[in-house]
This record gives sequence, C-alpha cells and structure tokens, in this order.
Amino acid sequence: MVKARKYVVKKAFEGLPKREDFEIVEYELPSLKNGEILVKVEWVSVDPYMRAYSTQFSIPYDQFGYQVGLVEDSKDPKFPVGTKVVSHKGWCDYVIIDTNEVDPFCSVYKLPEIKGFSDSLGVGAVGMPGAAAYFGLMDICKPKAGETVVVTGAAGAVGSLVGQIAKIKGCKVIGFAGSEEKLKWLEEIGFDKAINYKGANLSAALKEAAPKGVDCYFDNVGGELSSIIINQMNDFGRVAVCGSSSSYNEDPSKTPKASILQPALVFKQLKIEGFLTWRWLYRQSDAHTELIKWIQSGELKPREHIYEGFENIYDAFLGILKGENVGKAVVKL
Amino acid sequence: MVKARKYVVKKAFEGLPKREDFEIVEYELPSLKNGEILVKVEWVSVDPYMRAYSTQFSIPYDQFGYQVGLVEDSKDPKFPVGTKVVSHKGWCDYVIIDTNEVDPFCSVYKLPEIKGFSDSLGVGAVGMPGAAAYFGLMDICKPKAGETVVVTGAAGAVGSLVGQIAKIKGCKVIGFAGSEEKLKWLEEIGFDKAINYKGANLSAALKEAAPKGVDCYFDNVGGELSSIIINQMNDFGRVAVCGSSSSYNEDPSKTPKASILQPALVFKQLKIEGFLTWRWLYRQSDAHTELIKWIQSGELKPREHIYEGFENIYDAFLGILKGENVGKAVVKL
Repeated sequence: MVKARKYVVKKAFEGLPKREDFEIVEYELPSLKNGEILVKVEWVSVDPYMRAYSTQFSIPYDQFGYQVGLVEDSKDPKFPVGTKVVSHKGWCDYVIIDTNEVDPFCSVYKLPEIKGFSDSLGVGAVGMPGAAAYFGLMDICKPKAGETVVVTGAAGAVGSLVGQIAKIKGCKVIGFAGSEEKLKWLEEIGFDKAINYKGANLSAALKEAAPKGVDCYFDNVGGELSSIIINQMNDFGRVAVCGSSSSYNEDPSKTPKASILQPALVFKQLKIEGFLTWRWLYRQSDAHTELIKWIQSGELKPREHIYEGFENIYDAFLGILKGENVGKAVVKL
Repeated sequence: MVKARKYVVKKAFEGLPKREDFEIVEYELPSLKNGEILVKVEWVSVDPYMRAYSTQFSIPYDQFGYQVGLVEDSKDPKFPVGTKVVSHKGWCDYVIIDTNEVDPFCSVYKLPEIKGFSDSLGVGAVGMPGAAAYFGLMDICKPKAGETVVVTGAAGAVGSLVGQIAKIKGCKVIGFAGSEEKLKWLEEIGFDKAINYKGANLSAALKEAAPKGVDCYFDNVGGELSSIIINQMNDFGRVAVCGSSSSYNEDPSKTPKASILQPALVFKQLKIEGFLTWRWLYRQSDAHTELIKWIQSGELKPREHIYEGFENIYDAFLGILKGENVGKAVVKL
C-alpha cells in the first residue's frame, strides 16, 4: 500500500488564496487496475490559471495542475516502470493515473527528451507554458521580422519565452515586469528594453522604447497597462490575450475598469484574440519540438524559480500570484 | 460660372460640434479641365465618423462625406452628362470632381442602379454603411444560422442593416437602441428583441433575451454596454467593432473607462476585430449587389431619416450625434 498526499481546496478563494483555503489530505492508494500506472511525482507546477479557474469548480476539489513524475508501477505496457510522464494530476506526491482517461488540459503523456536539461521543463518551457508562448505568439500575433513586439508579465513563465521567441524571429522586443531584478534579467536574455510597470508615465516610457509603434502585443495582465499599450499600436496590429493576472484576485462580479479599447480597435483596425492553450493540444508536440531545438542550441534560455518540498507548494503558488518568481515557478518534491 | 457652397470646419470640435465651428463658404467654380466633371449634389450624408475623424485633419478643412449627385457638365466620356455619381466630396451643393483622383474612402463611381428606390440609398444601404454592415458582419462575425447576434446602435444606418442581414442568414437577433420609437421599429423589421440601452439592469435584460449566450456582437458604441455584452458571449464568440459612438464626443486624451474585457477574452477565447470600411473598397460592389437583391426582394427594408436643405446639414449632423435619427440620416438638397 502506498500512502499519498494531495492538496484539496476546501474553501473558495477570496482575494489572494490563503493557506487555510487548502487542506493536505493523506490517504492510501488502492492497487493498480489494468491500464493504470503509479506515479511518484517529482515536479509540481504552480500557475496563475489555478487562481483564475478556481471559480469553475465546486468546493471541495483536488488542486489541479501540471506535474512531472516517474512511473513506479505499471499495468500499461505503453508506460513501463521507469518512464517519466507529464499529467495534469495536480498537487500530490503519489498518484494513480488511468492512462486512457481524457483530460481537457492534457491526458498523461511521456516527458519529451530534453538532453542535458531538467525534467521540470516538462511543466515549463517544454510544457503548457511553452505551448502557450509559442502558439499565442506565432498563431495569433503572427510577428514578422522587424516588427515591434510588446509582452507584459515578461519575466513570468510564458512572457519570458514569448520575448525570446520573438527575438529568434527577428523582432524588436519590449517587456514589462515588476522589479529591477526582473528587468535586468530580461535585458540579459535579449529583450531590447524592459520597463517597470510600477513606474511613472508608462505611456511615455513605451513611446520612447517603441518610437515606430507596436505591431504585436502578448497580453498576460489585462487592465490599464494593456489599454496604454493597445493605444500605441500600429494599423492592423495583433493582440494575443493569454491572461489577465491584474484581475485574478478580484471579485469576479466586480471586474476592474480601464480605458476603453474600442476607439483604438476601430481606427487602427486591430485584432484581439483570447486563447486557452488546450485549443492547440493536438499539435502541442510541434511546439515542443521547436522549443527543445532552440533550448539545446542555446538560443532560448528557460529560467526556473525552484521551490522545494511538498509542504511549500502553497508558498510557491502565493509567490507567483504576488509576482515573486523570475521565470517559471516549479516545486521539487 | 457656377456658384458653389461648401461647409468648412474652421474650429476644432469640443464635445458636440457647434454651428459656429462651421463656416459656409460661397465661391465660384472654375471651368472644367479634361477628366473633370461638374456635379450638382442631390443627397448629402451625415455619419458619426465625421466627428470621430475630425482630429485627424488640420483646421480649416472642407467637411468630407459621401454624396450622390448628377453630372451637369463633363470632360470625361466615362461620366457623361446625366450620370448619377457617388463620391466623398462632402457637404457642398456643387462640386468639380477630377475622376482620376484617388480617395482613400472612395473615388467617384457611378451610382448603382436601385430600381424603384431613392438614389439616396447610394450613401446608405447601398453605400458605405451598407458595405460596413455587410462585410463587418459576414467577414468578421461570420454568423452561422441559429446563432445569436447582438448589435448596438441598432436603429442607426449600419446597425439596422446588420440586424436585418443576420435575420436573412437565419440568426436570432437582439438590438440595443435608445428610444421606444426605435425599439418598436426594430421589432417591426424582424429583430427578435430590442432593448433600450437607457434602461436599468441591461445585463439581466440581455440574459433574458439571449438565454443561450451571444455568439456574434456587432459593436457600434463601445464602452460599458459593450463590456456587458462581451461578458455574455459564448466560447469562440466573434466581435466586429465598427464604431465607438459612446466616446466620440469625449476629449480623446481622456478615454472613458469601462469594465475590462481580458477575462472574458481569455476564458471564452473571444476574437475582437476593429475595422474601417475602406479595407473592403476593392470588393464593395459585391456587397452592393447582394444588398440591392435583398432590398428589391423586400427582405431588407432600409429606412431613411430625411432632412432637407443645404442650410440644415449641420442640424442633421447634430441629430445623428444625439441619436435622433431612426435609420440612415441623409440630407436632400
């Protein structure tokens, strides 16, 4: 008998989630049935959508999320003992996975081989955040070499990849982030300019950084900063909306207000499209193949913010919601 | 020598344009050169973009706009005397047009034949507003039969066509307008429901009218009403932004605020696109051919709000900015 632990959300979040909103439940796993595998979880992901999606579930619910683990026992010959797998089984240390179960976020799959790099990339640059950055930028923003690309949440898991991919594609890249450490890192990895969104007169700062206007905007934050950026876009500019982290901790019935977008939308003939990454699930591996190529050639440098220990997953989660992470936040069990 | 009159904008608009912002200038037209035609203007159009675009021009400028006129003298065999023409020569009673001049809004062209209907449709249902409604709806919203389409500014020149085209395409149509007379007319011409945007609890009213959610939204107004509608859209909903009339009389440096769109954009994976009708200029006649067919079969009923007299163009313009018109506002000279 294997003992497992998992985080259960037992109280609806109000504002920033509190430690007491979660309960760590310990329980015994049953024996495996045909088509099942026993996974020892090695890496757990914490991401902003865990906050944003919380209202979609009825309390209590097991905290969902991506994870990388090792198959320790198997009743599915496609996943023999020793296989590394990625699944959406959330914040737990051991889990039984029915390999035929269909999950809208991702059914279990083998971790892509990322020679010389940490397996944790499977929930980061070579996981959902990588696919979000790749497809959001390439399929929605469709940047052309020489164009100016702006990304908010630029030092986060997705934003930092977006900026680097846009550089690989020959664009000028401007990122917004919230600390001097983050700005310094962004310029180190090739961003042409990084701007502190907590600073004064963001409109003037952007105008100086992007004197020819903005062609593509990858939006992770929403709100007034997005209105400022969208107002500096060029004709036929494209906006991919990946997240709205500026409002995730708000009461959803009280959406914050910001300067309206319609005048810029009309006069610049802009296109804005929101997306959830699972829309590209069926070709996620195409993105991962490209990303692994760039990572191994050194063109793309994924950075991770590593927390340690099952007990600290909550702290890691709070950290990303408060913007403390630089790069992708992951928890090593 | 022909004496002509034209409206010149001599003072930048602040808020609602004032009569004193215009000057009526009387002058003598020179004799025709080769490639020119003398047009006696019969119908002048007044449209919201005349307010919205005013900041793009330096004062003084001749008031631009669509017009239908009769060729009274011609030095271009393609446009013989007696031809009816459409041009973007604005608020004047006589004008000389160089037929080879390229105008981004539209170069002069022959009025399409609209048997049994007024020539004024050439600046309305069979002019720019018709093309805006047709392409904005068909190319951007892409409505499918059975879907729910919402249109704001529904009793206006463009909105009233959008709703009727969506009905022809088999959709359920809900319109927002600002007077009981307008609501009554919209339901007469086939809208499934018309809602007064000045009423209370618009969100509940829309939920009742569109219990299955909104698939397409044709936005003429922007602002909070648009945020309310966009928040009730279904997954993969499409929004065409044609105008932002709720903000046209505002100081452009003080864009009004409304509830942010990013959460709905992401979680419903919505697409919002703004457009200016000239992007479809090269295939405008395709739209007009369809529209004429529907008008002549009686499926589409264009309504006009007719003002009379050159001196009253300003009043007609003020009327549309205050929402007094039902259907397309035109001025008969």
